[in-house]
Parts: sequence; structure tokens; C-alpha cells
Amino acid sequence: MPGGGGSAGRDAGGGPGSSGSSGSSGRMPYVLISTQIRLEVGPTMVGDEHSDPDLMSFLGATKRNMLGNHFWEYYVTDAPRVVLNKLESRGYRVVSMTGVGQTLVWCLHKD
Amino acid sequence: MPGGGGSAGRDAGGGPGSSGSSGSSGRMPYVLISTQIRLEVGPTMVGDEHSDPDLMSFLGATKRNMLGNHFWEYYVTDAPRVVLNKLESRGYRVVSMTGVGQTLVWCLHKD
Amino acid sequence: MPGGGGSAGRDAGGGPGSSGSSGSSGRMPYVLISTQIRLEVGPTMVGDEHSDPDLMSFLGATKRNMLGNHFWEYYVTDAPRVVLNKLESRGYRVVSMTGVGQTLVWCLHKD
Amino acid sequence: MPGGGGSAGRDAGGGPGSSGSSGSSGRMPYVLISTQIRLEVGPTMVGDEHSDPDLMSFLGATKRNMLGNHFWEYYVTDAPRVVLNKLESRGYRVVSMTGVGQTLVWCLHKD
Amino acid sequence: MPGGGGSAGRDAGGGPGSSGSSGSSGRMPYVLISTQIRLEVGPTMVGDEHSDPDLMSFLGATKRNMLGNHFWEYYVTDAPRVVLNKLESRGYRVVSMTGVGQTLVWCLHKD
Repeated sequence: MPGGGGSAGRDAGGGPGSSGSSGSSGRMPYVLISTQIRLEVGPTMVGDEHSDPDLMSFLGATKRNMLGNHFWEYYVTDAPRVVLNKLESRGYRVVSMTGVGQTLVWCLHKD
Repeated sequence: MPGGGGSAGRDAGGGPGSSGSSGSSGRMPYVLISTQIRLEVGPTMVGDEHSDPDLMSFLGATKRNMLGNHFWEYYVTDAPRVVLNKLESRGYRVVSMTGVGQTLVWCLHKD
Repeated sequence: MPGGGGSAGRDAGGGPGSSGSSGSSGRMPYVLISTQIRLEVGPTMVGDEHSDPDLMSFLGATKRNMLGNHFWEYYVTDAPRVVLNKLESRGYRVVSMTGVGQTLVWCLHKD
Repeated sequence: MPGGGGSAGRDAGGGPGSSGSSGSSGRMPYVLISTQIRLEVGPTMVGDEHSDPDLMSFLGATKRNMLGNHFWEYYVTDAPRVVLNKLESRGYRVVSMTGVGQTLVWCLHKD
Repeated sequence: MPGGGGSAGRDAGGGPGSSGSSGSSGRMPYVLISTQIRLEVGPTMVGDEHSDPDLMSFLGATKRNMLGNHFWEYYVTDAPRVVLNKLESRGYRVVSMTGVGQTLVWCLHKD
């Protein structure tokens, strides 16, 4: 997974240490997807600006800028169930699902 | 499972790649069901327009169009607990359950 | 478990198939319990009209009619934690817990 | 665990059977803890009037009466994460976590 | 993990026993992280005043005081998904995820 969406560019959190940056380079064991209001239809949000481009491509996701440049996200028009099935074919399994406000979120993990 | 509700017709998300369409054809490892307000009674939503017709038939589900043609859903009059028991007999197990607004949602998976 | 609260009387959902009715007769692998507002006290809802009468009896549950004949439910005066402990002695394990509105819900499964 | 907070005094739910009372005496496989609004600080609610006194003592919990005698609860001033770590040392593992209203709830189980 | 953020300074809960203080010293099997409103961006809260300083340093976290001295918290500017991936490299796995109000919370555990 060359160039695989690690967090190298983000951990400038001002913390006292910096050992974290080497701990997650190039691996993407967790994926978060979400949808709003109705679970039977898309769009489904499938990634953020640091997500693995290869996985986003596999899902057929489009990158867009939200809220006046503040952050980027990837979305697909598929319903979340269809996305879960696609991610399963790549080894991701649902760990937990929750609702927050009008948004449904799934947390997936790949060993 | 001939004609088994894959996502072939949905992944026109405009993404840069299209390798996703072949990844989920004909498999339906995840099922989402939901009910509103009271968990002791139905109806229970059991599928979307891309759900496996055989599984929907097994559940005795009816397909209906919601919100002026915007999307389709399958529902049964059974309470969600009854649906969970039926799905278990087909190998589906509850992974997670959540509430969002007035809706209770179950995420099930079949190995 | 003779006469054990199957779903035989409920799956008249108008679906195109009816193979579902034989799939869940007499088994009750899933149980849903719920309580409102405070988790430290009962009452706890433990079943619906199709719940296994033997299990309801084991829990000491009372059947009551809610909302002008619309549906039946079983309840106990125990707090939910006490009910979870009783159900565990019968082989049920918590799979997931969630809140929806003012209601806390537990989903239990027995292998 | 002599005198271990069973549910013997509570299952007077008026149900048709009473076999439940012998099913949970002296075992406490499930624990529910909760906190309000902020997860970084206590107090954390750790038990109800039927909770195991030994476990409550281990956690350093105080019993108090809420809402004009209606029910009792145990609380600690620790943040919930600290309580989870203490309970883990006694064999309890988190099964599920949820939010309901302004309250966060953890459900723990001990084999 | 010298000086590893145990709960020794917090369990003055007024409880009748004090055996709890020795049960959790120096171990941090559970971690709670949270974010608000949008899951695609940080900041992500990663700890409280008793969290393991080494782990906080690994994450690049900054300690800050909230609400007029009432409590401390650690945060990073990373999105929660990036934090989950970093914590996974240290052996933490997501046990459950939930929403409460506008906040998304993940509960992680390390064996």
C-alpha cells in the first residue's frame, strides 16, 4: 500500500512526544462509515482526507470539500449495507454501530 | 442465490475507480433491520432495493415505495425479535444494535 | 419447550413467500429487554406477546396490555441488571446495549 | 461471596411462576456503570440496592438514597475509565457502551 | 510504564472499603476517546488527568484545563480514525462505540 493515507501529516497536536507518528504509517485497520436519517439509501460517507486512496477507489468514492475548505470527505451513493458488504470482501468487519444525532455510524476493523 | 441483490446497479458514485462493483456481487453478509418507537411490535424494516430477494421472501417481506419514488424498502409485520430469530436460523448473528432518533437498528452478519 | 412462543401467528406480512414461518418455530435465541429513564430500578420490559411463556414464567413476568389493545408486553419489577443476571443463568448473553429516546435496550442471545 | 447482593428480595413481580428466584442468588455476572455529561470526570454510578456489597466496597463506593426514598444507588468519585480499570482487575469486561439522554452507560460481564 | 497514570489519587469516594486502590495501580487496560459533531475531523479527546502519560505522549496529546479548573483532559488534532489506528499499534482494540448528545465515544481495551 504505497502512499496509503497514513496520519503522518496530522499529528502536530502539540503534544510533548512524537513517537506516535511512526506507529501508524501506512496501515488502515479502522474504517468509519456513516449515513444520515435513512439507512435504506445513500449517500454513505466512507472516508476522510487521510483515508487510504486505494480503498476509497475500490469503493468508488468521490472526494469532496465540505464547509468552506474546513475538511475533506469521501462519499459513495451506495446505501451503507452495500458498503459494508464491499468492505467485508476486503477483510473489514463491523465492530460497533451507533447513532449520534441524525447520523448512523459504523466502526469496522481489519486484522 | 441467482439474481441475489448485489450492488451492481448502485455504485455509480462517480469515484475514480470501479473495482468495487466486482467485490460484492451476489453476497449479502450484512443485514440491517430497524423498527420505530416500540420494540415489542412491528412493522420491522428488513431490506432495501438491493437486498437479496430470496432472503426477503424467506422473511415474508413486502416491498414498498417510500417518499414519492425516492427509494424502496422491504418490511414485515413481525416484531424485530421475531425477525432476529428467523435470521438466526439462516446463519445471521447480531453484531451491534443502536438507536438513532426514534429508530432502533440491528446490524447482523453471516460468515 | 412445548408451545414455546414461536412466531407462527405473526408472519402474515403479505410477503411473496411464506418459507419463513417454519424457520423460527419454537426457538427463542434472542431476547430483548428494556427499561426507561433510570437503570438502577425497574420495571423492566422482558417480552412481547410471542415470547416464550416458560422463560417469562422463570423471570416472574406479568403480561399486560398496552395502548388500548394494540399489543401485549411482559414486565417484571426487577431492575435490568437483576434480569440480566437471571437470563445469564439460562444461557443468555448480552450482545449489545443501546439507548433510544428515554429507553435503554439490551439484546441478548443464547447459542 | 456470602450475602452477595442477589435479587431475592425483588422478584415479586406478580408473574405466574417463581422459579426465577433461585436462578440468580449470589451471583453477579453483570455490572452496569454510568456517568453524566462528561466522560473525563466522575462521579460514576456503580451499583443499585441489590449490588454485591463486596464489589461495591472494593470500588470504594458510597450508598445514597435518591429521589425521596424511591431507590438507592452506589457511586464513586472516580471517572468511569478508572472504574473500568478497577473492575477489569476483578474479571469484568466491557460488553457494550451506550448513551441515553445525557448519560453514558457501560455494561460489563464476568465469566 | 513507570508512573503510569494509575487511579491512586482518585479513589477517595468515601466508600466503606479501600481495597480498590491496589487493584488498578499502574495498568491502563481501558481507553476512552471522543469527538464532537463530525467524525471526519479532530480534535479528538484522548485522556483525562489520570491517563498514562506515556500513552498520551505517544499520541502526541496536549493536556488542557477545562471549565475553570474543574478537570483536565488530553486532546489531539487528529481525527478519531487516525487515533484508533495509532492505538491499535499499541494493542488497543475497539470494544464499543456510542453517541451521547453531540459526542461520539469509543471504548478501547488492551489485553
